[in-house]
Amino acid sequence: MTKKVAKAKSAGRTAKPKASAKAKAAVSKLKKKKPAVKISPLAPKTYPAMPPVAGVWLGTASTKTKYKGRDDLLVATFPEGTSAAGVFTTSKTASASVEWCRTNLENGTARGLVVNAGNANAFTGKAGMATVRATAAALASEIGSRHKDIFLSSTGVIGEVLDPAPLEAGIQTALRSPEASFEGAAHAIMTTDTYAKFATRQVMIGGVPVRISGIAKGSGMIAPDLATMLVYIFTDAAIPPSMLQNLLMVGVRESFNCITVDSDTSTSDTVLMFATGEAMRTAEAETGKPFTPLRRTADPRLKEFRSSLDDLMLDLSHQVVKDGEGATKFIKITVQNAASHMEAKQIAMSVANSPLVKTAIAGEDANWGRIVMAVGKSGARADRDKLAIRIGGVDVAKNGVAVPDYDEAPIARHMKGSDIDIEISVGVGTAGVSVWTCDLTYEYIRINADYRS
Amino acid sequence: MTKKVAKAKSAGRTAKPKASAKAKAAVSKLKKKKPAVKISPLAPKTYPAMPPVAGVWLGTASTKTKYKGRDDLLVATFPEGTSAAGVFTTSKTASASVEWCRTNLENGTARGLVVNAGNANAFTGKAGMATVRATAAALASEIGSRHKDIFLSSTGVIGEVLDPAPLEAGIQTALRSPEASFEGAAHAIMTTDTYAKFATRQVMIGGVPVRISGIAKGSGMIAPDLATMLVYIFTDAAIPPSMLQNLLMVGVRESFNCITVDSDTSTSDTVLMFATGEAMRTAEAETGKPFTPLRRTADPRLKEFRSSLDDLMLDLSHQVVKDGEGATKFIKITVQNAASHMEAKQIAMSVANSPLVKTAIAGEDANWGRIVMAVGKSGARADRDKLAIRIGGVDVAKNGVAVPDYDEAPIARHMKGSDIDIEISVGVGTAGVSVWTCDLTYEYIRINADYRS
Repeated sequence: MTKKVAKAKSAGRTAKPKASAKAKAAVSKLKKKKPAVKISPLAPKTYPAMPPVAGVWLGTASTKTKYKGRDDLLVATFPEGTSAAGVFTTSKTASASVEWCRTNLENGTARGLVVNAGNANAFTGKAGMATVRATAAALASEIGSRHKDIFLSSTGVIGEVLDPAPLEAGIQTALRSPEASFEGAAHAIMTTDTYAKFATRQVMIGGVPVRISGIAKGSGMIAPDLATMLVYIFTDAAIPPSMLQNLLMVGVRESFNCITVDSDTSTSDTVLMFATGEAMRTAEAETGKPFTPLRRTADPRLKEFRSSLDDLMLDLSHQVVKDGEGATKFIKITVQNAASHMEAKQIAMSVANSPLVKTAIAGEDANWGRIVMAVGKSGARADRDKLAIRIGGVDVAKNGVAVPDYDEAPIARHMKGSDIDIEISVGVGTAGVSVWTCDLTYEYIRINADYRS
Repeated sequence: MTKKVAKAKSAGRTAKPKASAKAKAAVSKLKKKKPAVKISPLAPKTYPAMPPVAGVWLGTASTKTKYKGRDDLLVATFPEGTSAAGVFTTSKTASASVEWCRTNLENGTARGLVVNAGNANAFTGKAGMATVRATAAALASEIGSRHKDIFLSSTGVIGEVLDPAPLEAGIQTALRSPEASFEGAAHAIMTTDTYAKFATRQVMIGGVPVRISGIAKGSGMIAPDLATMLVYIFTDAAIPPSMLQNLLMVGVRESFNCITVDSDTSTSDTVLMFATGEAMRTAEAETGKPFTPLRRTADPRLKEFRSSLDDLMLDLSHQVVKDGEGATKFIKITVQNAASHMEAKQIAMSVANSPLVKTAIAGEDANWGRIVMAVGKSGARADRDKLAIRIGGVDVAKNGVAVPDYDEAPIARHMKGSDIDIEISVGVGTAGVSVWTCDLTYEYIRINADYRS
């Protein structure tokens, strides 16, 4: 439960002391100056249709705490017997809602989820935990569940006390409104994202068709807000909690744990998964035949589900990276022949987080000397004299020296594209990993430094 | 000898395959477009006079390998009996000259130093080591010393074979030229620094006046070059090698190991120190009384020397940070009440390297929420509910929550200055540390991304 979730973007605007009328006027003036939000050039060109997931009810509402003219509260409810799994930030300053979810996951069951956007309820001391308790109690009493079956996330400003009253009212409104779509749910949890993030897959488990759908919010810190990564995955498959936890952790390791925007980690990063079991109950009712429960993740009936779940998580994680502030390039970094998986990751993340590598790519410069530097500084084992680097499939360095007279033309073309591919072989073992990041541009600085001037 | 030297800037422009006439024309066009180098706004307002250090002979020459119209080779020679000490990059892709120095330091003696600027001789395989051997042999044969008493550094382009011939010629020229000053020496080792870095102190050891002088090059990656941190410290005190090594390592820990520009580490970072002993020999000759040799670093006669050496290293390390690319703010981050010195450092460096913190400071925004985030992601122990943050001496957060109604005016004034002071108390122990960094600006991106476009 302490697995590292994400290097995704984080920790934005800090709460201010109570603003005077004058200060409020100044802020309002600033807001007018704020440029319109542009959708990331790396946003998906098409979006999938998102059918419902049996057993998952979704509702949204506007709490009017921060955002105007849009819903900023997501409520999801699940039937009895729903399994829950989760992976959270490793931050030592984790928010109250993260602590709440971590504790409740020990039961492995869920009946509801509440996510609010606009206030992270982080760094709010005892008041923060009181709000968490009140919010969970509000949904629990509405649906008649135990408090500990309610999961919560908050994203937004750090250090500002989150009043539970608007959330409680929002929960009532959401539950009394028409059911929301996954697209609507993905929109409601956005803070500074430039597009809503969602994905879905359908697979068979032992002859039963099941659906997996996920929504995410990421790191588009276009406005001065917190940009936590939040991910919620829903399935109608019947999967026991401990198995669900395993499946989630394996998938996170190769997806959300392999992305980075700027090496910063939020106090609230969360990946939660819920399995209602409705698909199996329906199949049993329709066929009259009992579904033999899944007992272990190695069950061959789960093979397709596992790979589709991994694929869905990879899809969502890439959507998060592609909404990184100022991103113009989506960069895949593959490390091979490392001493261990951990060291491969260490090297790949060292390259992915190197400001010099990221700015070079922003400038469309295939600067492999900076990659050598980033490999070296990672601290992981690498044989300098066996080091090899390929950019866009072209060898630029081999056996620790530059490839003599390599053709720059195809590399230059590759660097002009939006998808950049870097392969590094470090010559000490057999382990490998891929990680994904984006470039570091003027726009990142503008977004993160200039909004006050 | 494997102590981590520096997070200073690093690894710039990579060697290209042999350029065609057309490519050369394009490069020449680019060079014309390159903006003039501006001196960092954080550069020192005054420079100290740099008297000679007894026993240290300095010479410079132009090898014409990369830079025109300036010297790019430094040669220093020392008398028999000179002690040497050194601390180097922890990079796993360390350059050939770093390997050479590491090996030779086992003897603890030195007769000469050669530093060339323009080519790092890094990632050059066997050819790199051959050049190192040839260069050392050239100086050794000129001054009649053992090869292993010659120390070498190279800084500049990565991945381009460094021809020893111009270095050999340059060594002969330098040795036959008038003696150079420390200022001249500091200029000769510059690559993309915007100002030469040097400092000097005079102290007494057991009644004998001794001098400590140092030069450094840092991280001004204004042009597309490698920006390794190189530091050379010279003294005329008589200090045995193992003691010198201890003194150097202690000083480095609190100075060069406590600075960061952008978290990137060069393949060539080096701090070398040489002690000629001339001051003691002169004192003995003048007074006729033998100087009782120093045998341990705790010798009370060394007290003043130790603190002055530490102070000199801190001075030089700050000069390096203040020449960070695009830097407009010099930032001191102090962490207190950490569980251990290592964890204090881990937290301080996490804050110092956070792009979100650095861009906020560039925007003159006292965004302490991002500091909370960076403390949390460091991985070191911190008590969220005891966390306290002061900016410019004003408490903004205490006991894990924002200070209610703190006065923003003095903080806003502080953020507009060039020296930014951040104090963080993490409430778990008694260890503390200070580190220094600079802000992250448009100019950093321009320098590192835009020189190709």
